[in-house]
Amino acid sequence: MTQLEEARNGKITQEMKRVAKEEGFPEKKILQWVKSGALIIPANTEHLKQGLKPLGIGSMLRTKVNVNLGTSPLDYDFKKEMRKLEISLKYGADAVMDLSNYGDIDKNRRKIIKNCPVPVGTVPVYQAGSFEDFENIPVDAFLEIVERHCRDGVDFVTVHTGITRKTLPYAKNRLTGIVSKGGALMAKWMLANKAENPYTEYFDELCEIVREYDTAFSLGDALRPGSTHDATDKAQIEELKVVSRQAKRARELGVQVMIEGPGHVPLNQIKKNMDLKKKYAGETPFYVLGPLVTDIGAGYDHITGAIGGALAAYYGTAFLCYVTPSEHLGLPDETGVREGLIASRIAGHAADLALGKKGTRERNDRMSKARFNLDWPGMFREALDGDKACEYRKRSGVNKKSGVCTMCGQYCPMKATKKFRGKL
Amino acid sequence: MTQLEEARNGKITQEMKRVAKEEGFPEKKILQWVKSGALIIPANTEHLKQGLKPLGIGSMLRTKVNVNLGTSPLDYDFKKEMRKLEISLKYGADAVMDLSNYGDIDKNRRKIIKNCPVPVGTVPVYQAGSFEDFENIPVDAFLEIVERHCRDGVDFVTVHTGITRKTLPYAKNRLTGIVSKGGALMAKWMLANKAENPYTEYFDELCEIVREYDTAFSLGDALRPGSTHDATDKAQIEELKVVSRQAKRARELGVQVMIEGPGHVPLNQIKKNMDLKKKYAGETPFYVLGPLVTDIGAGYDHITGAIGGALAAYYGTAFLCYVTPSEHLGLPDETGVREGLIASRIAGHAADLALGKKGTRERNDRMSKARFNLDWPGMFREALDGDKACEYRKRSGVNKKSGVCTMCGQYCPMKATKKFRGKL
Repeated sequence: MTQLEEARNGKITQEMKRVAKEEGFPEKKILQWVKSGALIIPANTEHLKQGLKPLGIGSMLRTKVNVNLGTSPLDYDFKKEMRKLEISLKYGADAVMDLSNYGDIDKNRRKIIKNCPVPVGTVPVYQAGSFEDFENIPVDAFLEIVERHCRDGVDFVTVHTGITRKTLPYAKNRLTGIVSKGGALMAKWMLANKAENPYTEYFDELCEIVREYDTAFSLGDALRPGSTHDATDKAQIEELKVVSRQAKRARELGVQVMIEGPGHVPLNQIKKNMDLKKKYAGETPFYVLGPLVTDIGAGYDHITGAIGGALAAYYGTAFLCYVTPSEHLGLPDETGVREGLIASRIAGHAADLALGKKGTRERNDRMSKARFNLDWPGMFREALDGDKACEYRKRSGVNKKSGVCTMCGQYCPMKATKKFRGKL
Repeated sequence: MTQLEEARNGKITQEMKRVAKEEGFPEKKILQWVKSGALIIPANTEHLKQGLKPLGIGSMLRTKVNVNLGTSPLDYDFKKEMRKLEISLKYGADAVMDLSNYGDIDKNRRKIIKNCPVPVGTVPVYQAGSFEDFENIPVDAFLEIVERHCRDGVDFVTVHTGITRKTLPYAKNRLTGIVSKGGALMAKWMLANKAENPYTEYFDELCEIVREYDTAFSLGDALRPGSTHDATDKAQIEELKVVSRQAKRARELGVQVMIEGPGHVPLNQIKKNMDLKKKYAGETPFYVLGPLVTDIGAGYDHITGAIGGALAAYYGTAFLCYVTPSEHLGLPDETGVREGLIASRIAGHAADLALGKKGTRERNDRMSKARFNLDWPGMFREALDGDKACEYRKRSGVNKKSGVCTMCGQYCPMKATKKFRGKL
């Protein structure tokens, strides 16, 4: 039985207990949220056997951050991907997606799952897309690959179920067309076969497959806007309506589900996007990529994405997919993974603080107190990436005796305040 | 006569003409805004003689970004500061502040002004603070140093006029006290001398000094919050009220003026802060540092600041002071300056795009079009930092023939869209 089905039966699972403890909510609350679909715990039964630490995803909990890994035909070095996994775990990734579409995809996926205590997601169609004769593969192959991923222990799968014969044509006059790799693959297959999207047509069968392992759905935004120009357009909204209906259907069939969101969205449209999700999909957890608030940040898109991500999380997004500095330019290296991850974590944390989520105010205050006391180890402990903070301090040249930093030196205003505070 | 006085006389100056052309507004509009104080053109008559390109600062114009430079007692290498100046200008700084408080401050300031075609700001009290016997310097010294800066061609000076005998005590019970270097200096002097802030007491005289050179005021936020805990507290708001009244007085005396804002502000308080500024200071241009939306981003505070800066600019801030990755940890190196500058420019640009400011939509669309066409030189041209984008592309390994990047390789969805678009 899936977490959702257990919740319907009123049973508080070990996984719910863990989430309750981690997030500081009563177990009964967690159960209610899982039951309603507002909270998912993507915990594949196979991955649980291999040591998965269950994670809750829902807008009432701490905002979660996902890291993307994986090989591509032009950058195939699986050892590097494993090093990226290590860095992701070290710097607090809540989940990891293996987006490999080259090499021994099956073997590598299993290795990642085995070495990853946080939930692992995949996009099965990437593997289908790596077949030379992709346009001619039968419908069954789409489903078979999903099953293979579930059997291996994948905790959530992105399936592009919202790109259909009806929604696809809306992409025709866009400035940047389709920018989802999976979406473009589905479109290609659908056009070549003059057929409906197999994930859509056989949605119930798909549900049955993932339900068996309690793999959660991440209903992919194949038609997400790839430019602020295309943001919140008809293609995007019509797809959102389709996946929103499918989310409901998936839950009816006992499957945990979240919905994916854009993409490139100007600052002033982010709240609107969150409201539209709520309108069509209710409390179904929202998983967004970025969103990027301008198109011209190339080389710094982790920052463009952090701006959008902070706002999106503030307005109700539960799960942020990280963006790295090399987005739009190439696969990230290890440094890029770390920078992208921390940028997204800052975004999530900023939203959590603004929303008054548990523990955030306290952590910020501990940091500020350490800062006021020039307690550097204390600051490095509370910072999201204390190693980096420590590096900067060392690099700038430190006067250990005074405890101050090179920004103000002996004119440190906090040190001064301490001295004259009594006279205020 | 200052730009403000000229505007009152109905005269469109050369500087107003340039701003009109740069920003795409009719000259008459610019004149009206300068007259009302909603727009300032900080252009010291001495700096104009040395080649200053006048810049307009106001919320109706493109959001501007300032870079801080300057030596400190623990990091004194003026050649490095000059290299930072070069980088700042190369990567689009709209203004530069020289915050030096060590070494031959006068000589170095003059060198910066001479080599800087964008407006230069300073904080004269930093120079006063570098005197060994600071607590005993007479009132006249405060004013004399301001005059010296104006005479050298400084286009705007930060003066901490809002920290007074009345507002200072509100800092007593703060978590992080006073975090403004200038604010702490003023407090120290005021407490030692049991006297009012000389800038406040002799505000009219101060106006007379800066008016002569048309140096604009940046009324400093000595009591800005140094932690999200202290954000929007009584100390901050009472100071805002004081400087708002002073801004009005300065304009009466013909002086152009902007007001400085926080600091550390949680996401959910940013709009409120902008509204409070509007309430007390009307359309007086707002110049904010960050704001930082969490306290725990050490090592990445350019990102924490970009999130806050984007929102602040969206809600009406005219001028963003950059924050570098080494904020709170040490003075930045050249790389840090570039990263901080671009992060702030992304923030400003995101706000400008959301507000539909002139030219932003067009630039984003040119970028997106280049992206869709895999036109890499076009992308590097439109990106805020095309050099960095180009570096990433090169570093990731490029397949020149296919034109795609290593993220998707041959599965590039945009390339695919182009092929099947006709069939949609």
